[in-house]
Amino acid sequence: MSPKITGELLRQLRQVMKNCKYVSEPLQAYIIPSGDAHQSEYIAPCDCRREFICGFNGSAGTAIVTEQYAAMWTDGRYFLQATQQMDNNWTLMKMGLKETPSQEDWLISVLPENSKVGVDPWIIAADQWKAMSKALTSAGHSLIAVQENLIDVVWVDRPQRPSTQLRTLGSDYTGMSWQDKITALRAKMTERKMSWFIATALDEIAWLFNLRGADIEYNPVFFAYTIVGIDTIRLFVDIKRLADPALREHLQLDTPSKPELHIQTFPYESVFAELQAICTALGHKDKVWICDKASCALTQVIPQAHRSTIPYTPLCLAKAVKNTTEIQGMKTAHIKDAVALCDLFAWLEKEIPKGTVTEISAADKAEELRSQQKHFVGLSFPTISSVGPNAAIIHYRPLPETNRTLTVNEVYLIDSGAQYIDGTTDVTRTVHFGTPSAYEKECFTYVLKGHIAVSAAVFPNGTKGHLLDSFARAALWESGLDYLHGTGHGVGCFLNVHEGPCGISYKTFADEPLEAGMIVSDEPGYYEDGAFGIRLENVVLVVPAKPKYNYRNRGSLTFEPLTLVPIQVKMMNTELLTQKERDWVNEYHRTCREVVGAELERQGRKEALEWLIRETQPIV
Amino acid sequence: MSPKITGELLRQLRQVMKNCKYVSEPLQAYIIPSGDAHQSEYIAPCDCRREFICGFNGSAGTAIVTEQYAAMWTDGRYFLQATQQMDNNWTLMKMGLKETPSQEDWLISVLPENSKVGVDPWIIAADQWKAMSKALTSAGHSLIAVQENLIDVVWVDRPQRPSTQLRTLGSDYTGMSWQDKITALRAKMTERKMSWFIATALDEIAWLFNLRGADIEYNPVFFAYTIVGIDTIRLFVDIKRLADPALREHLQLDTPSKPELHIQTFPYESVFAELQAICTALGHKDKVWICDKASCALTQVIPQAHRSTIPYTPLCLAKAVKNTTEIQGMKTAHIKDAVALCDLFAWLEKEIPKGTVTEISAADKAEELRSQQKHFVGLSFPTISSVGPNAAIIHYRPLPETNRTLTVNEVYLIDSGAQYIDGTTDVTRTVHFGTPSAYEKECFTYVLKGHIAVSAAVFPNGTKGHLLDSFARAALWESGLDYLHGTGHGVGCFLNVHEGPCGISYKTFADEPLEAGMIVSDEPGYYEDGAFGIRLENVVLVVPAKPKYNYRNRGSLTFEPLTLVPIQVKMMNTELLTQKERDWVNEYHRTCREVVGAELERQGRKEALEWLIRETQPIV
Repeated sequence: MSPKITGELLRQLRQVMKNCKYVSEPLQAYIIPSGDAHQSEYIAPCDCRREFICGFNGSAGTAIVTEQYAAMWTDGRYFLQATQQMDNNWTLMKMGLKETPSQEDWLISVLPENSKVGVDPWIIAADQWKAMSKALTSAGHSLIAVQENLIDVVWVDRPQRPSTQLRTLGSDYTGMSWQDKITALRAKMTERKMSWFIATALDEIAWLFNLRGADIEYNPVFFAYTIVGIDTIRLFVDIKRLADPALREHLQLDTPSKPELHIQTFPYESVFAELQAICTALGHKDKVWICDKASCALTQVIPQAHRSTIPYTPLCLAKAVKNTTEIQGMKTAHIKDAVALCDLFAWLEKEIPKGTVTEISAADKAEELRSQQKHFVGLSFPTISSVGPNAAIIHYRPLPETNRTLTVNEVYLIDSGAQYIDGTTDVTRTVHFGTPSAYEKECFTYVLKGHIAVSAAVFPNGTKGHLLDSFARAALWESGLDYLHGTGHGVGCFLNVHEGPCGISYKTFADEPLEAGMIVSDEPGYYEDGAFGIRLENVVLVVPAKPKYNYRNRGSLTFEPLTLVPIQVKMMNTELLTQKERDWVNEYHRTCREVVGAELERQGRKEALEWLIRETQPIV
Repeated sequence: MSPKITGELLRQLRQVMKNCKYVSEPLQAYIIPSGDAHQSEYIAPCDCRREFICGFNGSAGTAIVTEQYAAMWTDGRYFLQATQQMDNNWTLMKMGLKETPSQEDWLISVLPENSKVGVDPWIIAADQWKAMSKALTSAGHSLIAVQENLIDVVWVDRPQRPSTQLRTLGSDYTGMSWQDKITALRAKMTERKMSWFIATALDEIAWLFNLRGADIEYNPVFFAYTIVGIDTIRLFVDIKRLADPALREHLQLDTPSKPELHIQTFPYESVFAELQAICTALGHKDKVWICDKASCALTQVIPQAHRSTIPYTPLCLAKAVKNTTEIQGMKTAHIKDAVALCDLFAWLEKEIPKGTVTEISAADKAEELRSQQKHFVGLSFPTISSVGPNAAIIHYRPLPETNRTLTVNEVYLIDSGAQYIDGTTDVTRTVHFGTPSAYEKECFTYVLKGHIAVSAAVFPNGTKGHLLDSFARAALWESGLDYLHGTGHGVGCFLNVHEGPCGISYKTFADEPLEAGMIVSDEPGYYEDGAFGIRLENVVLVVPAKPKYNYRNRGSLTFEPLTLVPIQVKMMNTELLTQKERDWVNEYHRTCREVVGAELERQGRKEALEWLIRETQPIV
């Protein structure tokens, strides 16, 4: 991996920073955040501005260029990669280390007095803007919203913003028409006395209109904004995409059933002007609802007295609780996904001894097998296919230069998932094709105990997911072990594989309570640097539980695994399991065999079926 | 309980609210918070202003008086009590109910345009002031800091501020001289580049100077402020208290060993003027460190650019980690406390069948027995002595009108503790003197399982206590049960029985990580309204653990019980316990028998010893 040569680019950017065509006053610094205008976790190539300017292509990182310096902040996952991808025009700022200054402190230490610091207000969140602006102002500088993105100015071959074909989803997939979703949203708006709601997150807009796109890899979303009023709907999207008659019919663009369900369409870029026009006409009591993670540009259009920000929008909350149709779709998707994985593991068992399977070819095989399943659309994230020490790198993705061969001597971890029209999957299994060491088995078993502790937990309605995080760690902790990531994230239904507002992590406190119908992952792990990595992940559905008592009529919840892929018994030290845990494993494997077995049989996948039956023998 | 008659008082207060002798402009509303100027949990009689004006004497509540209305906000623990104590001039605002407006919203709904709302800036915290001021300003009103407390103006027989005798503690109790504590504090100040530190919490000041008072019932503290500079120490306290030669010697008032350890003493009231003088002379880079819970009055003296607020002060953090001497003192105190409780339970067993023991007489007996122990100073909080349904009221305190007789038919819960010169105790036991029902035993056993799960937990260094809270609930949750309070709080050493910055509660996220030497309570419970209450509380010390592995060299921690009072086996359904849990109970009882038994023997308390031996028989 050779670093990107950035000297000339930086020279150009520094010129633009002083060019009155773009800035009203010369800038002494320019901040390049890594996101897009929609707070997306994955971004389209046209939005990879931080990568363009410095060469580093990890998922998190902020670059700042001053007249003299260029610095890039990223976290521990990416120190090595950033060092390899950036040339020596750049200073790597290692976040999380004590000696590393914050972006604010660093700016204040290097800037001349009374400096102007620029940033594109579309790709900085309103709360980040506020914090940065406050810090700079208190040191005599100022933060400037530069309307034209200065990276785009110097990026001559910048890709176009994608505008892929839109796919409509009928009620057989969504369980609820977009009209009913609009009505439910308006009920929430009325309840909270809001006149307007601004949707900026791409998955919320896709969910609201029962549409999907392919603008961002792995995420079936499309670039758009939406403004919903009490009797108006404005959709901002590349107008060319709306030509398809089936789509026009789906959105009732030409024949709205009721005036308040008439969708007015506008070009994607006009959201700013349109919101400005709306805000000019606001009545004394009108309130505008917007997510606190929305862009500074849009947020600041709304006068503060009329602005009501929330950490999770009503769409985010509604989307998180899956309806019966979505749950059924997710179940079907997970059965198909399990078929592909049973096939994969049966194939790996046969092929690995030949020494021809690598991390990359195993990942490719997994994709090939998934693509044979009905309604397959694509992967839901880049497959983590990792052998031995590579699996200890939590966000590993095999590259030609790191690609390792699968053998009967090392533990293999595969974390993968797909988008099907009926649902999204995400599953991790850790397996050994030879004889695991006693230590590997011991660690695997602690991880399994943690996985079961969460999956089988019974807890009151209203419990936040973060309160379950320690259950996943107790067995590891008891032996002095741990893992440095959260235990679970929300999962969309043919939508983003990571979604809010719920999850299972010690790092958060602001997650929303778990409710029946929510879907999260349960994925504890253990990673031994330079040796091996273990993770065990199921996607699980929150379901009502019926324990003996019902304190204060609150009701109880538990989880039902949607993922139905056997957990390798060979990796378990069954002596470390309690009877309850053994029962859980046997019951889980019985379900895998029954449900996935029937589908394997139907599809005539004999070898995979044999593998499944072998791998689901009860343990004692 | 008859309500306080408040009509005349309110009339007077409303007059004062318009009297230009006290306010520059007439006030349309006046807020009466419940605290004192030091954010104390327990307050002195002279600070019970909210109780004075409305009659309600619960620990939490805020009163607001407007020209027309008088309203008082309190939480669910106190709805009944507040209704009984307030006359119909007052509206009870039930916090936590959906329909109850916040203080801000209510004020905005009842105030005429452009109103002035007054509050005493000494008894409102800086952050509360900020939130209230923001809300009022955005609605066109303003929040006014009224220097003279308007309740004090109408409170003709207001008690004097207490000024009890100060007690000095030598190194044999504190393990560290106040001089060394000052030096350590200054090291923290230098590390964080702070020129000044303001101490406002009474327990922090008592701890810093190794002094104790008795100004507030149950809390061995005294009214004072302290300002520590890099080479100066200012102590603000009623000067009359400093006459005692031993005290002057302890503080080296007349013969300071070094100039920077010379304590300058000032009257308690002059802290404001003195801080003002300091702030006038601040250099460009000088920073003043103050707790974000300090009073608005003191906080706002410090110019914003020089103010650095923190949730927990360096004194709070240092105080929480007990040194060897303090730990030894706490252990000794807990043994003495266990002696008193063994005595109590032996006595109760004998007396209850006679039908003469009540909640109040049992509490009195407990106090009498504790007072026989060496270095007894007083109780550490009002004893919760509760029988049957009374025990379901979590913050119950027996009163003549609720006093119930102890019988062999109902469960008895006693939550009590004491201040000894060497340490502070807090212990809860739930016992039955006849035959508990199967259901009572079942619930007790779930609570016990939760207690053990926390007490025996092993967790990495750096873990916050709130992450352990769910361990205490898992067994209850599995049966559909729960309790609606936190699991544990920090405990001072001959100081406040509740102290920060650590604890075990799902309600917080901002607690500081647990460290070896910290002391917290472990007190899960279960409460069945109208029937019975169960709680099981030990005070536990955080100690290093030595599990099999040591991930990333972080080290592990666990708890060692300091409380050594048998847990009633009769209340357990031992079939519900795992072998590990039975082992824990037996090991705990072995320690009780060994350690407390030896002390009972030494003190010649034969009946209590017999009781102890009987109650600590191993279970199978």
